[in-house]
Amino acid sequence: MASYNLLLLPGDGIGPEVMAEVEKLVGWFTKTGIARFETEKDLVGGCAYDAHGVAITDAAMDRAQAADAVLFGAVGGPKWDKVAYEHRPEAGLLRLRKELGLFANLRPAICYPALADASSLKRELVEGLDIVIVRELTGGVYFGEPKEIVTLESGEKRAVDTQLYTTHEIERIARVAFELAKVRRNKASSAEKRNVMRTGVLWNEVVTRVHKNEYPGVELEHVLADNCGMQLVRNPKQYDVIVTDNLFGDILSDVAAMLTGSLGMLPSASLGAEDPATGKRKALYEPVHGSAPDIAGKGLANPIAMIGSFAMALRYSFSLVKEADMLEKAVANVLDGGLRTKDIAGPGVNAAGTGEVGDAIVREM
Amino acid sequence: MASYNLLLLPGDGIGPEVMAEVEKLVGWFTKTGIARFETEKDLVGGCAYDAHGVAITDAAMDRAQAADAVLFGAVGGPKWDKVAYEHRPEAGLLRLRKELGLFANLRPAICYPALADASSLKRELVEGLDIVIVRELTGGVYFGEPKEIVTLESGEKRAVDTQLYTTHEIERIARVAFELAKVRRNKASSAEKRNVMRTGVLWNEVVTRVHKNEYPGVELEHVLADNCGMQLVRNPKQYDVIVTDNLFGDILSDVAAMLTGSLGMLPSASLGAEDPATGKRKALYEPVHGSAPDIAGKGLANPIAMIGSFAMALRYSFSLVKEADMLEKAVANVLDGGLRTKDIAGPGVNAAGTGEVGDAIVREM
Ligand SMILES: CC(C)[C@H](C(=O)O)[C@@H](O)C(=O)O
Ligand SMILES: CC(C)[C@H](C(=O)O)[C@@H](O)C(=O)O
Repeated sequence: MASYNLLLLPGDGIGPEVMAEVEKLVGWFTKTGIARFETEKDLVGGCAYDAHGVAITDAAMDRAQAADAVLFGAVGGPKWDKVAYEHRPEAGLLRLRKELGLFANLRPAICYPALADASSLKRELVEGLDIVIVRELTGGVYFGEPKEIVTLESGEKRAVDTQLYTTHEIERIARVAFELAKVRRNKASSAEKRNVMRTGVLWNEVVTRVHKNEYPGVELEHVLADNCGMQLVRNPKQYDVIVTDNLFGDILSDVAAMLTGSLGMLPSASLGAEDPATGKRKALYEPVHGSAPDIAGKGLANPIAMIGSFAMALRYSFSLVKEADMLEKAVANVLDGGLRTKDIAGPGVNAAGTGEVGDAIVREM
Repeated sequence: MASYNLLLLPGDGIGPEVMAEVEKLVGWFTKTGIARFETEKDLVGGCAYDAHGVAITDAAMDRAQAADAVLFGAVGGPKWDKVAYEHRPEAGLLRLRKELGLFANLRPAICYPALADASSLKRELVEGLDIVIVRELTGGVYFGEPKEIVTLESGEKRAVDTQLYTTHEIERIARVAFELAKVRRNKASSAEKRNVMRTGVLWNEVVTRVHKNEYPGVELEHVLADNCGMQLVRNPKQYDVIVTDNLFGDILSDVAAMLTGSLGMLPSASLGAEDPATGKRKALYEPVHGSAPDIAGKGLANPIAMIGSFAMALRYSFSLVKEADMLEKAVANVLDGGLRTKDIAGPGVNAAGTGEVGDAIVREM
C-alpha cells in the first residue's frame, strides 16, 4: 500500500472543525487499504502566535518542507487584530507559500447545480459555471521589496509596497494556465493593467510569447483586470481559465467564488515547480473561504471546501484520480440527498452540522 | 449671467458622440440665460496621438488648468494597441488627473429602478442601490516610482511598479469620504489589504485616526479589499460610501458599476483640493464607461452617463444645484417614458439613437 506524508495545519476559527472531517476520510483510506496517509498536525496563524509568538514556527516549516502535501484550514480573526504586522496570522500562510515555492494557485469557481439559487446572480448566468482562476502566488506586491513604512522628517509617514515580476515568473504561471486550458475548454484569458502598470506590460508581452511559441492551439485573450471584474459579474460563463497576478488574483478569485453561491464549497490548490529529479512538486491545499470566527466552534461550518481540497490533493499530489473522482461524486450525492449545512440549506430547511455532513460523505464512499 | 469656462475633451470611440449631447445642453443653458458656458474643445487620447504624437499636448493641459471644469469623454481603442507605453491614449487621462491634482474620484453606483432587470444580480439585491465609491486618484501604484522595465544580465526582464502612500494623501481622501457619508446614510467603509500590504496598514491607521478625531459620528467599518469585492456581489446594499486606493478603486468601482445594470448611465467626478484663496477646486467629469470602439460612430451609444457627468459638474463646480436636480429629473423622465438606447432597451424593444435621447432630455428641461 502506497504511503504518503500529509501535514495538517487546521489553523484558526472553523479550520479545526472542517479539518476534522478530512481526518475521517484519511481514516477511511487507511481502513480500505487504498493508500496510507501518515498525518502530522501543527499550528499556523493566530493559534501558533498564541502558543509560540510567531505565525508559524521553523519546526512547522520543516515539516511542511518534508511533507508530500500540506492541508491548510484557515487563519485569522479579530482576536489577533492588534498583533504586530510580522506576526499576524496571515504571515504564516504567506511564509508557507513563499518558502515552499507555491507559485501556482488554482481556484476553481464552480456553481453546483443544486445551489444555483444561492447565487446572487440570476440562475441562467451561473448555472453550470465552471471556471478556474490561475493566480500567481509567490510574486507581485505580496513579496516585492521595499515593503515598509518610514517616518519622514515632517512627521508624516510614507508606506511602500513593490509590485515586481520577472520574465521567468510570468512564463511559468502562463504555462500552468495553458496546460490547464488544454484539458478543459481550451481558452485562456490573461488579466492585467498594461494601460497603467509596467508589470502589466511585461505580463502581457510574456504571456503573448509563451502562447505563440508553445500553445498556439489554445485560444488566448487579454483583458484589463478592471474589465475582468466587470465581465465576471456580467457574464462569467464567457471564461474558462483566467490567469493573473497575485493581487488581481486575490480579488478576482473572491468575486468569482462569490458568484457561484457556493463559497463554502470551493477548494483550491497551490502548487510548486516539479522537481526534475523526483518528478514531485510541493503542494498546499486549502478552502477558498476564511476562518469565519463568527461561527467557529459551533459545528455549523460547511466542511465541503476542505474535503474538496483533500480531493484536489488526491488528484494532483498522489495521482489517486479515481479516488478523487469518487470523493467528488460522494460530495455531490450527499448534496443531492438534501443534507446541507446552514450556509447552503436555503430558508426554512433544517440544516445539518459539520460532522453530519462529513459522516454522510464517508458513508457514500 | 454667470459665465464659466468649460473644456470639452471628447476623446476617442463614442466620446465625441456622447459629448455632442452635452453640447446641446450647454446651448440650452445659454438660451435660457441661466448660465453661460464658454466651451473650448481639444484632443486627448488616441486622436491626440494621431494628430500630435502625444496623448495630450501641453497646450491642451494649459487649457485644462485654466478651465473652471473639464468634461472628458473616453479614450483608447485597439487602433492604438501598439503605441509606445508613454504615448498610449490612457496617458492623456493620467496626466490630466495628476497635473490637475484630482485626487478624489467619486463614482456613484446607482441602480435606476426602471433598469433593475438589466442587472445580472437578482432584482431584490440591486433595486434601489445607491452607493458611492470614493477612489484615491493621484497616488498609489498608478504614479509611484520606480515604474520601469529593466533587462537583466541574464536577458530576462524585470518590471516594477511602486505602490506608495503618505499620511497626507490618505487623510485628504478619507475626509472627502466622511464628508460625503455625512450628507448620505452616514456610513463609510474603508477597503485595503492591511494583511498583506504596508500601504494597507498605513491606510487603515490614518483612516481610523481621521475618523476618531474629526468624524466620530459617522459609522466606519474596515474591510479587506478582496472581501469587499465579494460583499459587493453578495449584498451591495450594505454599503453607503466605500473609500479605497487608486488600484482597488479601479476594480471595485467597475464591479459596483456592473452590478447596477446601468453602466451606460453612470457618471463620475474627479476633484482637486479647494484653493484656499479662491474657494475653487479643479474638476474633471467623465462617464464610468469606456470608449466602446465596437459601436463608435453608429449613433448607438447611451449619452446618459456623459450627461450625468455634466449634471455633476453643475452641482460640484458651478453650484447650480437646482439645475443639476432638474437635469437628473429630465433624464429620469425620459427613461420612464420608455425612450432608451440599445444597451438598456431590453430584448425586442425598438431602441433609440444617441441624438434622440439627448434631444428628448433637452426637451424635458
Ligand atoms: C489571508 C490572505 C493573506 C490571503 C491573500 O491575500 O492571499 C487570502 O485572502 C487568500 O486569498 O488566500
Ligand atoms: C483608462 C484607465 C487608465 C482608467 C484607470 O485605470 O484608472 C480607467 O480604467 C478608469 O477606471 O478610469
